[in-house]
Amino acid sequence: MPELRKDMVRDNWVVIVADNALKPGEFPINRNCVSSHFDGSDCPFCEGHESRTTPEIAAIRLPGSTADAPGWLVRTVPNKFAAFNLEGELRHFREGLFECFNGLGHHEVVIETPWHYQEIQQRDTKHIGQFFRLLRQRYQELRRDDRIKYIQIYKNRGLFAGASQQHSHSQILAYSIVPEQCTAIGRYFDEHRRCLICDIIKAELAHRVRIVAETDHFLIICPYASRFCYEAWIVPKTHTEHFDGISDAEIGDLAVLSKAYIGTMMDTLDQPAYNISINTAPVNSVEDRGYHWFMEISPRLMVQNAVEIGTGFYMNPVAPERAAQILGQTMREGRKGASHD
Amino acid sequence: MPELRKDMVRDNWVVIVADNALKPGEFPINRNCVSSHFDGSDCPFCEGHESRTTPEIAAIRLPGSTADAPGWLVRTVPNKFAAFNLEGELRHFREGLFECFNGLGHHEVVIETPWHYQEIQQRDTKHIGQFFRLLRQRYQELRRDDRIKYIQIYKNRGLFAGASQQHSHSQILAYSIVPEQCTAIGRYFDEHRRCLICDIIKAELAHRVRIVAETDHFLIICPYASRFCYEAWIVPKTHTEHFDGISDAEIGDLAVLSKAYIGTMMDTLDQPAYNISINTAPVNSVEDRGYHWFMEISPRLMVQNAVEIGTGFYMNPVAPERAAQILGQTMREGRKGASHD
Repeated sequence: MPELRKDMVRDNWVVIVADNALKPGEFPINRNCVSSHFDGSDCPFCEGHESRTTPEIAAIRLPGSTADAPGWLVRTVPNKFAAFNLEGELRHFREGLFECFNGLGHHEVVIETPWHYQEIQQRDTKHIGQFFRLLRQRYQELRRDDRIKYIQIYKNRGLFAGASQQHSHSQILAYSIVPEQCTAIGRYFDEHRRCLICDIIKAELAHRVRIVAETDHFLIICPYASRFCYEAWIVPKTHTEHFDGISDAEIGDLAVLSKAYIGTMMDTLDQPAYNISINTAPVNSVEDRGYHWFMEISPRLMVQNAVEIGTGFYMNPVAPERAAQILGQTMREGRKGASHD
Repeated sequence: MPELRKDMVRDNWVVIVADNALKPGEFPINRNCVSSHFDGSDCPFCEGHESRTTPEIAAIRLPGSTADAPGWLVRTVPNKFAAFNLEGELRHFREGLFECFNGLGHHEVVIETPWHYQEIQQRDTKHIGQFFRLLRQRYQELRRDDRIKYIQIYKNRGLFAGASQQHSHSQILAYSIVPEQCTAIGRYFDEHRRCLICDIIKAELAHRVRIVAETDHFLIICPYASRFCYEAWIVPKTHTEHFDGISDAEIGDLAVLSKAYIGTMMDTLDQPAYNISINTAPVNSVEDRGYHWFMEISPRLMVQNAVEIGTGFYMNPVAPERAAQILGQTMREGRKGASHD
């Protein structure tokens, strides 16, 4: 049974996923940097291998195709190794210092493409738009369950970003409690009666030293206190609490922008591993005012070390102002190049 | 100039180390899992290469040897790539949403052994004791500077633990502010007027399901909410706020115990990368009551992924009770074996 255990010393929660004891060879990484699922020959996410995944929850399909068969462009399935499941109610246990919740929640895998080697930046923007539309749909469906309090959409790409599969995929994890790290935006609103992210957008547009790109609907910035080198946020300019508030026009813009940005980042930084996390408001809560969803893209050029483990401080050796300058310039050159093609 | 920047969205601080822009090849890792300093032929930490490090701060030396020359067993030098330095006073800057401190602090490297391939578990216990004695001395010396508020002693071993050098070394980082993650113990004391770590020791000794080993002076446990698979804490049984309160008898015990435990962990988990962090009380503060130093040893079998980045939740697939059982059994067998040698 998965548990959410209270970490009294760090004042946080830890997800203890299972009560088995993995052997060294069963971990996604080992000291030889080899992962078992990184060649394309036997991939459960490829088109034609639908029977190897759990049954499909939803998909963007070609007309006439049927569930769990070929003919799809984006497909979402329950995570076979789910951290949580949605059975029963949230339960709280406490015995002296030892406190936990049961692992109530939901965990699914969004297979972004039928083709093994097709990364985001290699897809056409219509296909990327379909991916974002399916994410919006799943967010809308999941938040209807009032046992769910927070929905995280995320992506691990590459071994150094925690991926255990090479085939391009994202994940949706629905939690029964709101992570503490996602609540500072709410506290800022309580104190100032203004949205922190809207205030950041205004300040960044005034300073213009950490802007990578700007479109009709979005701003890309390297945030002032970037935790990772070359970290960037794609932020919608219109104040929108929840990710599923994204409009069709915004999805069209985001598809073009994220393709261009991820392509730029991958070329500039020599194809790094990276993570994406969509930060959004808590659901089934009266406290979603002041939240404003945004997408955080963090290349993984450094490894988390004991400084961060012991103190919680991240160390970033690249000033965000320099990162924004380099990424912004490469992005503008790429766009100029693209307009001549 | 290094800066400690306020992360408004996560309510934390990020260390922005420098204003340069590292190129992909200059990062400690790259996608090929190759680090430039992992062969022993050209190591700045090896005996005979003393001129390649910054000048020595302190050392355990053989009689007749001189500073910055061969003839040492443990040697500590300023970190050439220091995150902080101790010049001037702590300064605070704020411009609207953008808030930071200057990078006041101290950063040094403790070279644990003159020999390139000698890991902790391969050293004799007298040598390990000398290492702990030098750490105690440096902690005592550093806390005399009242600009310093927290001293972290830590170790990164292996590429997946953030090490950029193979030669066995630890680091000491002295901060001008107390990390938020190190304050929950103080809050527990304020609320209960008891030490959280003493209470944890009592509870673990009563339950006996997460104990790996016990000696006269120390307990090794896999903590209830372990953030990492097979994480273990070495905790002194006597309530001691600061690491420099460790007695000579405790150092002798800790040298034997840490050698045996690290050897067990390395063998059981197939020589993983790992981190050590010594958690201790803030210094130059009236608020050190209730703190109790302990050593956290975290093998790095999984990579930090977007779940943790986005929510702050760690995911641990191995129940600490199973980890303690496996490590404890291997450790008892090792000791039995050792007693027959």
